[in-house]
Amino acid sequence: MPTITALETRDVRFPTSRFLDGSDAMNPDPDYSAAYLVLHTDERTPDGEPLAGYGLAFTIGRGNDVQTVAVAALAHHVVGLDLDDVCGDLGTFARRLTDDSQLRWLGPEKGVMHMAIGAVVNAAWDLASRRAGKPLWRFLADLSPAEIVACVDWRYLSDALTAEEALAMLEDAAVGREARRAHLEQHGYPAYTTSPGWLGYSDDKLATLCREAVADGYRIIKLKVGASLEDDVRRLGVARSAVGPDVRLAIDANQRWDVAEAVGWLSELERFDLAWIEEPTSPDDILAHAAIRAAVTVPVSTGEHTQNRTMFKQLMQARAVDLIQIDAARVGGVNENLAVLLLARKFSIPVFPHAGGVGLCEMVQHLAMADFVAISGSMEDRAIEYVDHLHDHFVDPVRVEGGRYRAPVAPGMGARMWQRSVDDHAFPDGPAWQAPAPVPAMPVPARVPAEGHALAEGAVV
Amino acid sequence: MPTITALETRDVRFPTSRFLDGSDAMNPDPDYSAAYLVLHTDERTPDGEPLAGYGLAFTIGRGNDVQTVAVAALAHHVVGLDLDDVCGDLGTFARRLTDDSQLRWLGPEKGVMHMAIGAVVNAAWDLASRRAGKPLWRFLADLSPAEIVACVDWRYLSDALTAEEALAMLEDAAVGREARRAHLEQHGYPAYTTSPGWLGYSDDKLATLCREAVADGYRIIKLKVGASLEDDVRRLGVARSAVGPDVRLAIDANQRWDVAEAVGWLSELERFDLAWIEEPTSPDDILAHAAIRAAVTVPVSTGEHTQNRTMFKQLMQARAVDLIQIDAARVGGVNENLAVLLLARKFSIPVFPHAGGVGLCEMVQHLAMADFVAISGSMEDRAIEYVDHLHDHFVDPVRVEGGRYRAPVAPGMGARMWQRSVDDHAFPDGPAWQAPAPVPAMPVPARVPAEGHALAEGAVV
Repeated sequence: MPTITALETRDVRFPTSRFLDGSDAMNPDPDYSAAYLVLHTDERTPDGEPLAGYGLAFTIGRGNDVQTVAVAALAHHVVGLDLDDVCGDLGTFARRLTDDSQLRWLGPEKGVMHMAIGAVVNAAWDLASRRAGKPLWRFLADLSPAEIVACVDWRYLSDALTAEEALAMLEDAAVGREARRAHLEQHGYPAYTTSPGWLGYSDDKLATLCREAVADGYRIIKLKVGASLEDDVRRLGVARSAVGPDVRLAIDANQRWDVAEAVGWLSELERFDLAWIEEPTSPDDILAHAAIRAAVTVPVSTGEHTQNRTMFKQLMQARAVDLIQIDAARVGGVNENLAVLLLARKFSIPVFPHAGGVGLCEMVQHLAMADFVAISGSMEDRAIEYVDHLHDHFVDPVRVEGGRYRAPVAPGMGARMWQRSVDDHAFPDGPAWQAPAPVPAMPVPARVPAEGHALAEGAVV
Repeated sequence: MPTITALETRDVRFPTSRFLDGSDAMNPDPDYSAAYLVLHTDERTPDGEPLAGYGLAFTIGRGNDVQTVAVAALAHHVVGLDLDDVCGDLGTFARRLTDDSQLRWLGPEKGVMHMAIGAVVNAAWDLASRRAGKPLWRFLADLSPAEIVACVDWRYLSDALTAEEALAMLEDAAVGREARRAHLEQHGYPAYTTSPGWLGYSDDKLATLCREAVADGYRIIKLKVGASLEDDVRRLGVARSAVGPDVRLAIDANQRWDVAEAVGWLSELERFDLAWIEEPTSPDDILAHAAIRAAVTVPVSTGEHTQNRTMFKQLMQARAVDLIQIDAARVGGVNENLAVLLLARKFSIPVFPHAGGVGLCEMVQHLAMADFVAISGSMEDRAIEYVDHLHDHFVDPVRVEGGRYRAPVAPGMGARMWQRSVDDHAFPDGPAWQAPAPVPAMPVPARVPAEGHALAEGAVV
């Protein structure tokens, strides 16, 4: 029988702090990093390549070693499994990891251990969709309603959503699935950009990047806020002048405020006609989000640090958010994100997936697209975050054109990195970390003619 | 200047699963473990011993390696620090760890990384109180109200409790501090026991252990529930018959239920006149606890897995609990537990500290006792959990007599283990893990004549 033969891990880090990319009020100097893993198998693809599954947990530097050890700690649950069993029942596969009675103590279902589970679960979905020869979004959208329901761990959800209700919602959503798939393949999925808005950038750079973003087709631009109210007012003025009245501006405080501080700050900023405030306070604080939402006119959101489906459920039950972010690498993988997408449909909450980082755009686009085709049926009232860096380290990088994500066509979930990128950025011994002076963050040529890339270029309508 | 010279870590595990000690509905086979650490210094005690600080994160087996690596990942924040700076400002010390902008991504303030921070913070408090020659409870109780307030990270708390309110509460509590200290030293602090109630035990063993517990002076006994309603009804009947009407019975479901399931189950069990239901559902689910509490007469509690002060705050704001547990090794150390104790006083919520495990009794007793002397001023309406195993691995084991914890007199927080216990139970290479057949869980003689122990015996009134 074909089996998973090994779980390989690598500690991969990019020295992004040298350029202030990704700087915000809570994260002044991130080195975008990945606890990267490969599920090796003894099967081959139709092309004769070794079949494998790729996944990662995203971190921002220190601690990526801890995250990598946590991924490796799951090997005993995975190595030796029958590929047919894994690919045929990814619900049972994911629950095997979250239900480990001893590992559960380290969360439960939160933090380092849960992100490790998410990385391994995502790698298994990558493996299953590669084996099926489909991009993950398509693999998911082709599952039956009952198969999707079987992927979800329903524990702790039944006071808001039951498996039976979810099945009924998914059966409703099955109507029009083929037309939505064709629409997606033709038109892509809306993107929004955070690239102009990092706190470390000058006003001139902010204005220039905002104008470029509008010219590139973006209809929403997000700025980081929360370090200085005076600076935020000035920077939002700069941005609003640069983009005109019709482009939406969102802001992100990265957990900076208490309730009263958030309300005071937002009262000064709401005149800029904001699309949303993201992470105004602790991601754990459901009641604080509800209190802030009740006091300001800016739509409230959170989610990139929301640890699991139980917290998302409460954010919706408490009417604490107007919209949410999901993140491909924070919760327990595809399965738990399916639960969150089902909750969002139940509560009519639009989803604006969090991305950027390393591989987050590549992965999360699949979830948003599967949601459009098979779950919510909506796309034009939402958008996937896009940040334009580090994509060239990936074998199947995202393609964003005219402010929209093009639907991926290469099989898998998108987390596979070039071997050279992995080796060059291995921490602490890779060449990128040996250089006495800053090295370019993207050593791979910008447009490498790779098989996945060429396939993607050719197949989208 | 005197400095912290090294942070040493050890992966220590006890093969408790061989005896079904600690079995419950979610944790059928725990191997009680510690990610153990020592903060070495270049200073010596008045006795000429090397001065060090001891701490641990408690886990239940697999994943203790991950937890140990997470503790080690904090070394760069600690090694080389001036001892006077550390011991003189433990608030700044703790915030240095929680505010690491890159490590924060791995939580924030939850799971593996937060427990690691808690272990290092507790080791620093152990070090500071050893240096002062005081048991931690006394060291804490001797701090001024302003010093206690300065230990707390007030971020995310101000919608429920401000530093100014806390200062006023502590100044109120300063009245009578000396009398309470004397009372505590004479009478100790109430304990309750969970030893009789593990799910793996037979009815006969349960009844025998219940009768012994009552004879030993316990007034509250806790039983694990949640695997089978029929079994729970029968076991509660056995326990109630064994203890009579005057001893309180509490139950612990270890996160087993959804809301409706909890309400249905508790409706069948409330006739046993229960002191509380602990962890009826996910520790993350504040709204579910509130819904359960509204539907049943059994007092609702949680806390041993509550990840940080922000979650405790919401449990109280939402009136989701009648009482809480705190745990010495789950949150960010002494500092964050001080925040929780202050919140509990503000909301008039009694605290029943979680213990058992490895070293949890030894550590958490200090927090409860400091709370009695300097914060809540209350003790007879609450009790510290006690489980009678693994104490002899500790240099200063707890002493529970007549159903009460005696106030420790040895300096420090209590987490220091015998070197032989550490070496014997080092995983995976220690002798306890090499034995072909089960080995006794307590290789150290039950009453070892050690300096710490002898000191404790001699000094309590």
